[in-house]
Amino acid sequence: MSHTAGELASYLGATLSGDANVTVAGVASPERASAADLIYVESPKHLARAAQSAARCVIAKPGTSIPGKTLIETAAPKLAFAKAAAWLLPKNAPLAVIHPSAIVPASARLGANVSIGPSVVLEDDVEIGANTVIEPLCFLGRGARVGEGCRLHPRVTLYADARLGNRVEVHSGATIGSDGFGYVFGDGRHWKFPQIGTVEIGDDVEIGAGTTIDRGALDSTVIGDGVKIDNLVHIAHNVKIGARTLILAQAGISGSCVIGQDVIVGGQVGMGDHCTLQDGAIVASGAGVLTGKVIRAGHTMWGTPARPLEKFKEQYAWVSRLPELAERLRKLEERERAKAGD
Amino acid sequence: MSHTAGELASYLGATLSGDANVTVAGVASPERASAADLIYVESPKHLARAAQSAARCVIAKPGTSIPGKTLIETAAPKLAFAKAAAWLLPKNAPLAVIHPSAIVPASARLGANVSIGPSVVLEDDVEIGANTVIEPLCFLGRGARVGEGCRLHPRVTLYADARLGNRVEVHSGATIGSDGFGYVFGDGRHWKFPQIGTVEIGDDVEIGAGTTIDRGALDSTVIGDGVKIDNLVHIAHNVKIGARTLILAQAGISGSCVIGQDVIVGGQVGMGDHCTLQDGAIVASGAGVLTGKVIRAGHTMWGTPARPLEKFKEQYAWVSRLPELAERLRKLEERERAKAGD
Amino acid sequence: MSHTAGELASYLGATLSGDANVTVAGVASPERASAADLIYVESPKHLARAAQSAARCVIAKPGTSIPGKTLIETAAPKLAFAKAAAWLLPKNAPLAVIHPSAIVPASARLGANVSIGPSVVLEDDVEIGANTVIEPLCFLGRGARVGEGCRLHPRVTLYADARLGNRVEVHSGATIGSDGFGYVFGDGRHWKFPQIGTVEIGDDVEIGAGTTIDRGALDSTVIGDGVKIDNLVHIAHNVKIGARTLILAQAGISGSCVIGQDVIVGGQVGMGDHCTLQDGAIVASGAGVLTGKVIRAGHTMWGTPARPLEKFKEQYAWVSRLPELAERLRKLEERERAKAGD
Repeated sequence: MSHTAGELASYLGATLSGDANVTVAGVASPERASAADLIYVESPKHLARAAQSAARCVIAKPGTSIPGKTLIETAAPKLAFAKAAAWLLPKNAPLAVIHPSAIVPASARLGANVSIGPSVVLEDDVEIGANTVIEPLCFLGRGARVGEGCRLHPRVTLYADARLGNRVEVHSGATIGSDGFGYVFGDGRHWKFPQIGTVEIGDDVEIGAGTTIDRGALDSTVIGDGVKIDNLVHIAHNVKIGARTLILAQAGISGSCVIGQDVIVGGQVGMGDHCTLQDGAIVASGAGVLTGKVIRAGHTMWGTPARPLEKFKEQYAWVSRLPELAERLRKLEERERAKAGD
Repeated sequence: MSHTAGELASYLGATLSGDANVTVAGVASPERASAADLIYVESPKHLARAAQSAARCVIAKPGTSIPGKTLIETAAPKLAFAKAAAWLLPKNAPLAVIHPSAIVPASARLGANVSIGPSVVLEDDVEIGANTVIEPLCFLGRGARVGEGCRLHPRVTLYADARLGNRVEVHSGATIGSDGFGYVFGDGRHWKFPQIGTVEIGDDVEIGAGTTIDRGALDSTVIGDGVKIDNLVHIAHNVKIGARTLILAQAGISGSCVIGQDVIVGGQVGMGDHCTLQDGAIVASGAGVLTGKVIRAGHTMWGTPARPLEKFKEQYAWVSRLPELAERLRKLEERERAKAGD
Repeated sequence: MSHTAGELASYLGATLSGDANVTVAGVASPERASAADLIYVESPKHLARAAQSAARCVIAKPGTSIPGKTLIETAAPKLAFAKAAAWLLPKNAPLAVIHPSAIVPASARLGANVSIGPSVVLEDDVEIGANTVIEPLCFLGRGARVGEGCRLHPRVTLYADARLGNRVEVHSGATIGSDGFGYVFGDGRHWKFPQIGTVEIGDDVEIGAGTTIDRGALDSTVIGDGVKIDNLVHIAHNVKIGARTLILAQAGISGSCVIGQDVIVGGQVGMGDHCTLQDGAIVASGAGVLTGKVIRAGHTMWGTPARPLEKFKEQYAWVSRLPELAERLRKLEERERAKAGD
């Protein structure tokens, strides 16, 4: 969509300085922008990039000056840029076409304007909300439910009974609702513990490429509203994740972990089963959280086993000083021996 | 299937107390159970949950008392529950239907009651055993063989010549038989080392969603009977894994590792190439095992580089005490200086 | 293809000793080889394996003697073996067939001898170069471009506008061009930062099963020529990777990292965003590189946080000696107290 800088400033509730009639039709980086692309500057060190850009309209902090540009001034330029992008960029309107090669049983309940791509397979009793797009080669198992305005990219699997809220985006290769990893050993073999629970994904969730989310064993795996999950993440059975929590790439959350709201789980973090991360906790990338550990609200942890970040840093500093400490100890011993030999 | 508590106790070889005619038709958690669902109590602290459940039949340890419930008493309630679930829960009988959109060449050898879902693609000379279910969107390369009673969930790839035993379950997005990562550098480029070996999966193996198992380079990658592999695990070329070993989520096993029977490889463990894990060894979650390392039977290892668990704990305890040790050293030095200044 | 040992030696520029007319038709390990298979011996300890093999032709180092075998002598037998394999092993000539179940819009630009398998889906404006094979169940989004002589194994996704060079091989389940993980928090929610950049893969790249490569946010994700990427690797938005770099299994490269040429990133390595690995750097398996870190050309790093390998080893050795140091400290204190008590 094409707008003027004035309309955009108004939409963002921001102050405009310069020509309000400049056209804004897209977003770009300063180097790639054409005249009608919006750019932003968050930090003064990137001012020159903005000044040299072909873009005519720049989102910047109040008090910024870039000759020849129309400025939209706001305290949080990157945030405003993200909002502007969501406003400007064309959402491909759903084609509202069911491709003839898709398998859509008569039992499917499809909302208005649902699109289903080639070679999609729906089992019985699937429900798909209005304006949702199911891209090619997806599989939705028996009884799966997808809300309104969702987008399943190609090659997504929903196992039977998986439920997605509204405006959920799932990237290619993700699997939702697979069996959890649960066995009981007896009589010389592993007996599979029943994995017959459900998986419930809230609204406004985004799930990365190749990520796997297992169904509950007897209960539910629950992902709260607004949670964002990166690529190749593993979420085991019975995990609960609170609203707006971020899970970065390749993190692994073991069974029955309870993760609060607004938590950040860093990349490649490993969490043992039955951990609790209270609201606002942060586990930094690569950390390993022991089984059953409780991390208090707002705390930041690092290392394996995970400990408070300050403690980790202190311990790490001491380890770095170990050669020095050992040398001081050696000299003390030496002087003691020298005295004894006096 | 519906049974009586008496029949179930008899099947399990367990003692029944209470009404043997209570119907048992499914399994559930105490909170979700209806009257006909079976529940279990492993630990006394969950007795109240069981007592409050709508379930009429409870598997519990001998000597347990829960008023109003029919008890099936056994020393290992969770194990008995898993066995009961396998006995009670309906296995969807294979539909024994080949979907018309599946590509099934005339060269395919299909056992009795094989089911093949929509958009499945079989290359030439594939063999599939009786009662096996190939769900939608799977690919089976030339010469692949799948045993009897297997289930390939949607979107599984078997590369050419991959072989699966009987009763193997493979979850969505898994890839079996991909080329290993082997190159030889020369003349300024990486030459691919031939990856033309095979991959052989035993009986009763379960393979998690998104897991990748590479074929051998010149020899075979071999997964033994009863091995259970979690989600997003990477198993490289030429790896051998013994019977009943468990590999937890996101573990990575480098080329030519030899893993014994009844081993446990924890989540996100990384193993360098040519490691040996003898029978019953345990590598705890997040550990990193150095190339060529041999871990003896029954040993438990942790950390990177992996060392015996007790040693890891001891070292970690000392690191935690480093600030104290440094302070004691400082005071010794101070007192020495004070004396010297006397 | 079948050749003589003499032709092979000539192709490799190597010295032949023995019968130059021996037929060489394939490659194998010594144990699996038939008479017409080529084998190699890199290290003297494997001479006996070669001697016992049915193979009649062996690549070995100059001066090696194996009675009864034709020897092709070269300083780098494994390299020569890889080259020989590439020369001998049949490339399945592309069938040059578009399967009728594939969705190929009229807007597709297909080079000569392109093969497209069953249930492949091409969106509009896709370009595929000559002799490229798109195996079943792949998806190529709008505007995707694939060069000549490429092979996409089954179940590969290219998002819109993804570009692959020539002779690129992508393994099953890989996803190229998915949205990066970028959000800006404001007004109580995560706003998606636009992920509208591109992904550009060079020539002679191999990408492992299940690997995910995100498109740039506003700019490009770029993978250089000859890069080899193992299974289940995560490469985030805006990452640049130089020529011939190797990325091992399950490594995770965060956003905007710049990786030079001939770098090795070990298995399960995690890199924070905006790291720089200069040419020839090595990050050993399992290491964690902090955000913004610069690793100089040719350096080898290990540990979390990653530090020079020698430093890591030194620190680790001191940690192992901590119990001893603590005991020496204790004894010093004891002797001091004893003296004080004199």
